[in-house]
Amino acid sequence: MIIDIINKKRLGQELSYKELDYFFNGYLNGKVKDYQMSSLLMAICINGMTDEEIYALTKIFVDSGDILDLSFMPGVKVDKHSTGGVGDKTTLVVAPIVSALDIPIIKMSGRGLGFTGGTIDKLESIPGYNTSLTDEEIIKQAKDIGIVLTGQTATLVPMDKMVYALRDVTGTVSSVPLIAVSTMSKKIASGADKIVMDIKVGKGALLHTKKEAQKLSELMKKIGSFYNREVETIISDMNNPLGTNIGNSLEVLEAIELLKGNIKDGNFHDLCLKLCSEIISMAKDISKEKALEMSKSAIMDGSAYKKFQELVKAQGGNLSKIKVSKKTKQIRSNKKGTLEKINAFELGEISVGLGAGRIEKDDVIDPKVGIVLKKSLGDKIKKGSVLCTIYYNNPDSFEIEKVREAFSIK
Amino acid sequence: MIIDIINKKRLGQELSYKELDYFFNGYLNGKVKDYQMSSLLMAICINGMTDEEIYALTKIFVDSGDILDLSFMPGVKVDKHSTGGVGDKTTLVVAPIVSALDIPIIKMSGRGLGFTGGTIDKLESIPGYNTSLTDEEIIKQAKDIGIVLTGQTATLVPMDKMVYALRDVTGTVSSVPLIAVSTMSKKIASGADKIVMDIKVGKGALLHTKKEAQKLSELMKKIGSFYNREVETIISDMNNPLGTNIGNSLEVLEAIELLKGNIKDGNFHDLCLKLCSEIISMAKDISKEKALEMSKSAIMDGSAYKKFQELVKAQGGNLSKIKVSKKTKQIRSNKKGTLEKINAFELGEISVGLGAGRIEKDDVIDPKVGIVLKKSLGDKIKKGSVLCTIYYNNPDSFEIEKVREAFSIK
Repeated sequence: MIIDIINKKRLGQELSYKELDYFFNGYLNGKVKDYQMSSLLMAICINGMTDEEIYALTKIFVDSGDILDLSFMPGVKVDKHSTGGVGDKTTLVVAPIVSALDIPIIKMSGRGLGFTGGTIDKLESIPGYNTSLTDEEIIKQAKDIGIVLTGQTATLVPMDKMVYALRDVTGTVSSVPLIAVSTMSKKIASGADKIVMDIKVGKGALLHTKKEAQKLSELMKKIGSFYNREVETIISDMNNPLGTNIGNSLEVLEAIELLKGNIKDGNFHDLCLKLCSEIISMAKDISKEKALEMSKSAIMDGSAYKKFQELVKAQGGNLSKIKVSKKTKQIRSNKKGTLEKINAFELGEISVGLGAGRIEKDDVIDPKVGIVLKKSLGDKIKKGSVLCTIYYNNPDSFEIEKVREAFSIK
Repeated sequence: MIIDIINKKRLGQELSYKELDYFFNGYLNGKVKDYQMSSLLMAICINGMTDEEIYALTKIFVDSGDILDLSFMPGVKVDKHSTGGVGDKTTLVVAPIVSALDIPIIKMSGRGLGFTGGTIDKLESIPGYNTSLTDEEIIKQAKDIGIVLTGQTATLVPMDKMVYALRDVTGTVSSVPLIAVSTMSKKIASGADKIVMDIKVGKGALLHTKKEAQKLSELMKKIGSFYNREVETIISDMNNPLGTNIGNSLEVLEAIELLKGNIKDGNFHDLCLKLCSEIISMAKDISKEKALEMSKSAIMDGSAYKKFQELVKAQGGNLSKIKVSKKTKQIRSNKKGTLEKINAFELGEISVGLGAGRIEKDDVIDPKVGIVLKKSLGDKIKKGSVLCTIYYNNPDSFEIEKVREAFSIK
């Protein structure tokens, strides 16, 4: 039976709900082995899945754990998700703005692996911040302040945890159907009514082509409509890093600057406001223009930053104790010209090398290290201009020449 | 690096010798895990391999173990291989005929798994027959009597043993390139100069279409020419079982009948003589017609059967002690008409159910059970005609109706 199911998918045939259920729940209870699951996952990566298979597998994933019941809260519950990119700290900005406008936001995030960081790792760079709330604590805090940013609970789609860990080490991450199932099952189990998906595309993202991103967008909407969840998607560029700061403490500090109204343009600013506008217009059923104005006001009147402070306090964090490394190195250009590209993937890899991210699941992250960009796309660069500052702990953890190569100067 | 290699093959790109070597030898030494190998194998099953990859992987397989050096023996060393089918006991007939004509034949065979039996299991139904000869014993016996039929030594392509065991449980058996590499690496390491391949195609074989069989035939010839081995292929039908007997002791007895000259026609007889003719014409560089005549003479003058007796004696077996089960059941037709098809796959599965084959690698085989066909294709069948006799140990190990269904009567 196990082998028959693998063979069917190898030949590109459709699997029934019953077959998917047998196989994936067999994996959860140890009857299907790692090497059999990875074989099926690779067949799925190459041969794809039909919509019916995707709906079925999403249900199997959701049913593997508990569903967070948020029905006690009045109003529309909105969730936001990013497929992950270098320098992506939008959640830290978007969630407080939305919450400041009285839209409850309860978000469970993941840790980073590879070149893209995770929201939970960023939040943990705030000393004291607790990312392991229980269902009860989540519900209490949601009632009290209308905002929760925490890690995924153990009972949130345990099937996804197991399958993702295997995908990560078997070259089966880059599958649009599997990404859709993994993401949507978690969002459905998290109890949101409406979901805004930020799909990253480019060198510094999981998906490298716009076509794949569009495919994923369609699939997520289809799954959403199958499960009665409204899904909006934004496809955003991830060839260049988002904002100026890469690395955990550094990214929290950049998010705070935006919340305080000190960052008024750039790709990070623009994407945050676009996401807010989508979420608020969905939740309040108003125009995106109106929603955008409200978002800007929440920044300007200080209510968004105040909400962020409330959140951090409620989860035990202390903003005044955020630290960045005192050891820094300015990287200077050795040619002149115009800055045409900043390679997000390479800077992501360099930040992992510094200790800001993980290669293996058990690697410990150093919150204080990272990269701060000093030049923007289109800037004129002179010989000797500072391109970026490296915050490091170990001077051997980066190569100056490699950092320079991430900047294309023509 | 491991993941990069898997990703390349997932995307259908060509792997270099270095990459294949790193991955497969990494598997042999435990650095690459089962779940990573099965992921790559599935990507190979679906995306295929280029000729260059196939030559490289064959070399990596061959180099993983020892090469049996048969150069001390004069003349051309020929080997014969079948991709496996239901009732395929041709080796037991072909090897003695060829050897009786002074062509040395040293053949290492595998065990059966699934619905096709293995030559080694058949030989072991002869009480006392030793299938675990060492390299030294093989060489001594080859010198003494010019014929050896034994199991694969531990040092014969250990990579194939490991990879095949994994393919078997991960739905990655049916890959033409992987079958070609697995088979050819063993034949090359076994020291033969010329190889005759019997490629089975049909319901009772690994390959179900003539196209796949032709692809495999081409590939094996290409690998052979790359490694300076002459390869001839025969593509033979495996929709119907070969001969009348299925099951280990029963098949040995049928082989003996043919060697004694008591079977003069039928698909088993014809295929054996065709294989002999190919091998003898290759080894002696004579016409196939002449080679066929010589094969027939070796049967008629008793030299082939004498050689078989010598072989069994040399490896410790006692032909007079072969036993079949005393519990038998005649299966009678419940309709009348003409026998149009005998489903080899279904009879193979029934024989495994009886205990003649293995489902899991560690299953113990019962040599005494099996099936003897009593009707041939095209025979007129009456209601109540005996279709076959089941030799069983446990009356619950087969269902009469299932056996009847394997016979299509129109």
